[in-house]
Amino acid sequence: MISSAESSSALSALPTPCLLLNEARLRANIARMRRNLDRLGVSFRPHLKTAKSLDVAHLAMTSPSGPATVSTLREAEYFAEGGVRDILYAVGIAPTKIDRIGAIRRRWGTDLSVVLDSVEQAEAVAAWSRRAGDALPALIEVDADGHRSGVKPGDAEALVAISGALGAGAVLRGVLLHAGDSYGLDDPEALAEAAENERAAAVAAATILREAGLPCPIVSVGSTPTARFARDLTGVTEVRAGVFMFGDLFQAGVGSVAVDDIALSVLATVIGHRRDKGWIIVDAGWMAMSRDRGTARQAVDQGYGVVCDCAGRPYPDLIVSDANQEHGILALRQGSSARLPDLPVGSRVRILPNHACATGAQHDRYHVLGAAGQVRAVWPRINGW
Amino acid sequence: MISSAESSSALSALPTPCLLLNEARLRANIARMRRNLDRLGVSFRPHLKTAKSLDVAHLAMTSPSGPATVSTLREAEYFAEGGVRDILYAVGIAPTKIDRIGAIRRRWGTDLSVVLDSVEQAEAVAAWSRRAGDALPALIEVDADGHRSGVKPGDAEALVAISGALGAGAVLRGVLLHAGDSYGLDDPEALAEAAENERAAAVAAATILREAGLPCPIVSVGSTPTARFARDLTGVTEVRAGVFMFGDLFQAGVGSVAVDDIALSVLATVIGHRRDKGWIIVDAGWMAMSRDRGTARQAVDQGYGVVCDCAGRPYPDLIVSDANQEHGILALRQGSSARLPDLPVGSRVRILPNHACATGAQHDRYHVLGAAGQVRAVWPRINGW
Repeated sequence: MISSAESSSALSALPTPCLLLNEARLRANIARMRRNLDRLGVSFRPHLKTAKSLDVAHLAMTSPSGPATVSTLREAEYFAEGGVRDILYAVGIAPTKIDRIGAIRRRWGTDLSVVLDSVEQAEAVAAWSRRAGDALPALIEVDADGHRSGVKPGDAEALVAISGALGAGAVLRGVLLHAGDSYGLDDPEALAEAAENERAAAVAAATILREAGLPCPIVSVGSTPTARFARDLTGVTEVRAGVFMFGDLFQAGVGSVAVDDIALSVLATVIGHRRDKGWIIVDAGWMAMSRDRGTARQAVDQGYGVVCDCAGRPYPDLIVSDANQEHGILALRQGSSARLPDLPVGSRVRILPNHACATGAQHDRYHVLGAAGQVRAVWPRINGW
Repeated sequence: MISSAESSSALSALPTPCLLLNEARLRANIARMRRNLDRLGVSFRPHLKTAKSLDVAHLAMTSPSGPATVSTLREAEYFAEGGVRDILYAVGIAPTKIDRIGAIRRRWGTDLSVVLDSVEQAEAVAAWSRRAGDALPALIEVDADGHRSGVKPGDAEALVAISGALGAGAVLRGVLLHAGDSYGLDDPEALAEAAENERAAAVAAATILREAGLPCPIVSVGSTPTARFARDLTGVTEVRAGVFMFGDLFQAGVGSVAVDDIALSVLATVIGHRRDKGWIIVDAGWMAMSRDRGTARQAVDQGYGVVCDCAGRPYPDLIVSDANQEHGILALRQGSSARLPDLPVGSRVRILPNHACATGAQHDRYHVLGAAGQVRAVWPRINGW
């Protein structure tokens, strides 16, 4: 093991701001999720929208060929190119995107499936399938909690009509739900209830399809909070989750991860002080942290992030209280009796993000920290569509 | 002129979400700013942090070699490579970044200047200058309004001490201010007052330096609101501003631009409906729009953006009322009596952003719209540090 002085000297060679990834925490977060889902008897289809990195995907997926979930076709292409052969594109399909999906399926032989919640989408998918001679697999999105898209779980008419339209050329593969409203909770009982609600809605929709004589091999649910707090997943076949791999302050506020599990941080350099105001200025502003202020709606508002030393230990009550494009303002939480740490110009700090998906997207690579705190690898990540 | 059907057919070929740039509005916004600054008798050093594009820079700068302002050294390298020879890096200098600044100055012969507000930074810059045999030009950041960094405009002791430290090898080039608090205003009189306050603070600091026998050739001020509302800039030599080129809903809320001047929009495709909730779902979520919710603090909260048809005309009261990573939820403003437009799956809309700097950073290119609404060019843009 190297000393803390040596490990911070490794970080001092990096240009700032940049993204650090604690590999041990990443692996532990993944192992914890896998154990939990194994216990519940469901398979795992990690959502790669947070990491957008093949290196991270290889740690998260149960095999190098998948299964996996993506949020953009750019991700689908990147992971298919990297050898992933079972990919679910989990955003409602637009008819103009089907040609690109067909191209990914042909080029890499990837079983790329789509999601939809209307007869018009199902008709477009079926028509394309007939023209292309490629029967696209599709899941029907079902609304778990009024959060976003999807047909009502008990709406037999819609479920059967969509399945019927798909049947004319495409393949009905099952149902998909996302309990997005769980993000607004922070009580373990309420979270377990949200998970049970997601499961029950999924099973209700699958039962309607099966009773109508339709196939429903896949019953897919998922969100980081419900995957963490589910007690029983009878009737569910697979779970999708992504942000849990890195964790973030928002998920810590929900209770899905602990602050000490957060694997992602932004390395920043002190560039000034406003001692009259109790401010330390760093070179990580909202461009490096993202504009995400999700914790503002939670019990503890973390500003634009929690400030740690180079070893990743939070300074008492020190947060990024405000941010401009390339300036972060560090200050103690209002009412804190802690002392502002002595951080001269040139000092380095690490900042835990509110939202790993949003902060990650501001960067093009991960500086991967090994067990001794050294930078042991650089992993690229993608962005865009 | 081509018909509106033809112009929207040009847009229908683009993958979504993507960034559109209305070239006529961009040129008009730049011409308006230049006329205003010409009338005030000051030179213009456009801030390229919003556009991060050489094509846009060539329209904004008064010559292909500058002057220009940047917010990252990645921008400095990119624009120096593109021929810009007079660049101000307007974020407080960290000592670890000086080597990279020296490399840019050597490689491209670019007059790259830095900003600082402490004796410790001035000593680091002077020491580097002596070692490298390259006298770095530096501006002292002065605090216009308590917004962020900078020494107090009347703090003669600090101004003279910093200048003294710089004198041991580096070059004092002048003073720099940014009236960031103007972003919180929306009254033309208050904005004119903020501009006058910025000017007066700049002149006060320059006067202290000159009375101490120190040179102060550059007196640099700037923000989009104060550049727009300044009535007199006596004593100021140059103005920096950037977001005005594109405009956005936040600046429209301030009054710096009109909604009809906004040159940037995100093209999106309808992927679903929740008719029970009055929602239209599109494939532009916060990843495409950014997490910026700046208008939430203004008189009119624009959600994640104002929704327009393919010709750029806003639909009455239709905004992006909420957003997930790759889903935008379009809905009428609360209390609106307007009718939700009929937008079947596959329809395309354009969304005006809250904050052009933040939305632009989520993308890697501009699809440039010509006078007839056709895509006449693709301009790359950079991100990162």
